[in-house]
Amino acid sequence: MPTQTAAQRRNEARTVYDAFLAGCPSRRVLHRISDKWVTLILTALASGPLRYSELSRIIAGASPKMLTQTLRTLERDGLVAREATLAVPVRVEYALTPLASSLMPTGNALKAWAEHHIHEIEEAQTAYDRQTAG
Amino acid sequence: MPTQTAAQRRNEARTVYDAFLAGCPSRRVLHRISDKWVTLILTALASGPLRYSELSRIIAGASPKMLTQTLRTLERDGLVAREATLAVPVRVEYALTPLASSLMPTGNALKAWAEHHIHEIEEAQTAYDRQTAG
Repeated sequence: MPTQTAAQRRNEARTVYDAFLAGCPSRRVLHRISDKWVTLILTALASGPLRYSELSRIIAGASPKMLTQTLRTLERDGLVAREATLAVPVRVEYALTPLASSLMPTGNALKAWAEHHIHEIEEAQTAYDRQTAG
Repeated sequence: MPTQTAAQRRNEARTVYDAFLAGCPSRRVLHRISDKWVTLILTALASGPLRYSELSRIIAGASPKMLTQTLRTLERDGLVAREATLAVPVRVEYALTPLASSLMPTGNALKAWAEHHIHEIEEAQTAYDRQTAG
């Protein structure tokens, strides 16, 4: 495109990311969103804001430490907003940000894929173990 | 549905999985597919079978140990097929299975989301750090 200035070309180059490249910051993002607890928290919040105790009940088996740490990371990444309502006692809710909403079709698809294909995965594992043990 | 027998109802109940439940095997599957290296290997293989050395070149920065272990796990899960061609020397290629192909729209979407939203994540992190440091 000969009408572009050098600055425009540099700027365009800066916005091309590829997670296949080791140094690409998008790989860090991929690492952050590729997490079982992240997927479970985001899909739980997809149906509306929730209090900590509600999240903890929905995502059975998540330790308080894991839940608290993951929520803080998601808040720092701009994916979850912590909303405190001035009341007695203070009501704190967690909600998806618009950025997280754009990730939700993928998050929901990941959770649904796991639920739909568990049989095939388990059959493959049994076959593999039988073959490698023989 | 009154026409169902008790056995049919039990059978149907067995096929309903929910990763929100701690004991649900689908949560293990979600954990397996929620991995940066899994996503990078599967998206690399989406364009066709590759040899180990080709995979290693595409996914820059993956250690041989990580790559070998993840490939073995994916093979055991029935997501990657290891195909050896009888030749001298033996040519070994890794390919997606049909099961993995059904996961690929999600895998590609995850990688693309990370690449497209890195700026927003980084801005959120900077804002969070400034706020919590103040």
